[in-house]
Amino acid sequence: MATSRSPELRKDAIHSRWVIFSPARARRPSDFKSKSDPNPNSKNQTECAFCAGHEHECAPEIFRFPPDSTSDWKIRVIRNLYPALSRELDPPNSESVGGPVTIPGFGFHDVVIESPAHPIHLTDLSADQIADVLLAYKKRIHQLRAFDSIKYVQVFKNHGASAGASMSHSHSQIVALPIVPPTASARIQSMKEDFAQTGKCGLCQVKQDDLLIDESSHFISIVPFAATFPFEIWIVPRDHSSHFHELDNNKALDLGSLLKLMLVKMSLQLNNPPYNFMIHTAPLQIDSTELPFTHWFIQIVPQLSGVGGFELGTGCYINPVFPEDAAKVLREVLIPN
Amino acid sequence: MATSRSPELRKDAIHSRWVIFSPARARRPSDFKSKSDPNPNSKNQTECAFCAGHEHECAPEIFRFPPDSTSDWKIRVIRNLYPALSRELDPPNSESVGGPVTIPGFGFHDVVIESPAHPIHLTDLSADQIADVLLAYKKRIHQLRAFDSIKYVQVFKNHGASAGASMSHSHSQIVALPIVPPTASARIQSMKEDFAQTGKCGLCQVKQDDLLIDESSHFISIVPFAATFPFEIWIVPRDHSSHFHELDNNKALDLGSLLKLMLVKMSLQLNNPPYNFMIHTAPLQIDSTELPFTHWFIQIVPQLSGVGGFELGTGCYINPVFPEDAAKVLREVLIPN
Repeated sequence: MATSRSPELRKDAIHSRWVIFSPARARRPSDFKSKSDPNPNSKNQTECAFCAGHEHECAPEIFRFPPDSTSDWKIRVIRNLYPALSRELDPPNSESVGGPVTIPGFGFHDVVIESPAHPIHLTDLSADQIADVLLAYKKRIHQLRAFDSIKYVQVFKNHGASAGASMSHSHSQIVALPIVPPTASARIQSMKEDFAQTGKCGLCQVKQDDLLIDESSHFISIVPFAATFPFEIWIVPRDHSSHFHELDNNKALDLGSLLKLMLVKMSLQLNNPPYNFMIHTAPLQIDSTELPFTHWFIQIVPQLSGVGGFELGTGCYINPVFPEDAAKVLREVLIPN
Repeated sequence: MATSRSPELRKDAIHSRWVIFSPARARRPSDFKSKSDPNPNSKNQTECAFCAGHEHECAPEIFRFPPDSTSDWKIRVIRNLYPALSRELDPPNSESVGGPVTIPGFGFHDVVIESPAHPIHLTDLSADQIADVLLAYKKRIHQLRAFDSIKYVQVFKNHGASAGASMSHSHSQIVALPIVPPTASARIQSMKEDFAQTGKCGLCQVKQDDLLIDESSHFISIVPFAATFPFEIWIVPRDHSSHFHELDNNKALDLGSLLKLMLVKMSLQLNNPPYNFMIHTAPLQIDSTELPFTHWFIQIVPQLSGVGGFELGTGCYINPVFPEDAAKVLREVLIPN
């Protein structure tokens, strides 16, 4: 890492959020390799409730792929047994303004079981199998859109116990919220201000050679200019698109391939770290005037360090790795045949 | 915990930030007790660079208390050996607006060594010794205010490795920033909107009987209405005050006593968990029109669970413990004589 550099503060056009790049806090490159055991459950566990044959141990199923499969399913979308929000409550009517506010916790919290087999990780799947997982997200979002009181859908994956996974069987989660969450509102506001100044969508313009990791027909993968976390990766559609659920089959296959490549590169470079990925999309009921400056993307974050009082207090993160250096390291990872 | 409750979303007037309270994700009360070893260094370490007699191993000293002490100092404020920001750089002139922005990482990053003795924790100090630590923060902030380009000072403490501490010797940190960080800007904006609606400062009004833990002559301690984290505690001045550095000696002693009580109660109830505390104050160069709705406070956060993709993606936290329940538990902790 470039330890001869001076510290810098950067604010990107997407989030208007300051990040401190601090080479004095950098460790040697090898120190970034993860040391934690990513397996959240017992190391010798070979079967769990998410495995084929254990369907009756799970919360109710929403759908499976292929739809008519019995014991030979590839993907199952089920309810979360411990949902953060309840689908049984009355949907809230409208959002109050100002002062302390309470609304019922109406919403949906689902789990996408990505494979019937316990030891398979997402990166073990082929590009077209990963595309099917992405299309399962899409299908579920289309179902959730039918609820007027659902304002936002967050798709995310926790891989590894320290990234928040409580089950080691490969899965991701979908939470449908009755509010637009803070990160989405702040991003829209920031991209709107940027659009007003430049006349262009900030994510349509995001490509910079020194930040590029790889690209495919329809997507690019970069380290963002003001990456919050070391080795954070964004996968961004080349063409302007506000909602993830606009993804078609062709683009899903292309994205499956690039997502797999990024996860494999990150795993090789950083010793299979715990990680999260999040799909950042536009709110469901977005005003059509806001579509020109909202652009969905996937954020991948390896969990390499914890959060301390400085980050909790300021909302400002200290990143010891400059994005150009992280992009170079990830660009140059050699994938064994 | 009240597992018969339904999930709720709450937004407080201070942050306009949604938090999901989700009893379905609650564990048994005993499960909240910390299981992690809070000691960041080797368990048998009895001396380090922060100990009396090792002053030459540290980065340069800024001041000590008592000022004329030689080997019998009580508190030392020193530079951080691995500062996030550099005091050697030219201060940035002004903040650009819009688009990707880079400014030099000018700033200060100091360490407050709270005791000369290695095994002493902050809670082992007497109320007046803790008051001296608070007055050391105040003195250093008064020095940092002299720099026009310093816009905000964040005081924080990381206790325990998983809370971000790299040294087990009791210490806290002070970072002086050339920007107003996102959390402070968002809080001011939110409190301003609340003030415009109610005509009152949201933190002058914050006391609610069921959220109160304890109180002293000049401060109250509560669990906030929309606590982000389980068993989060705020200590709030009763009288309106925008800046922490307005603290006088009398109030420092009163605060030292209440801060100690809160840390002891948290430690007893949750098995000495790793924790952070942060002093949330107003920006240094705040406009006088903003003083009526900015009110400093201390936030204490026990580190009981990690952050997953949902929180990273949405900025919305899931808290399994309702604030009224957390306040009751903390109110009723019995302190052994």
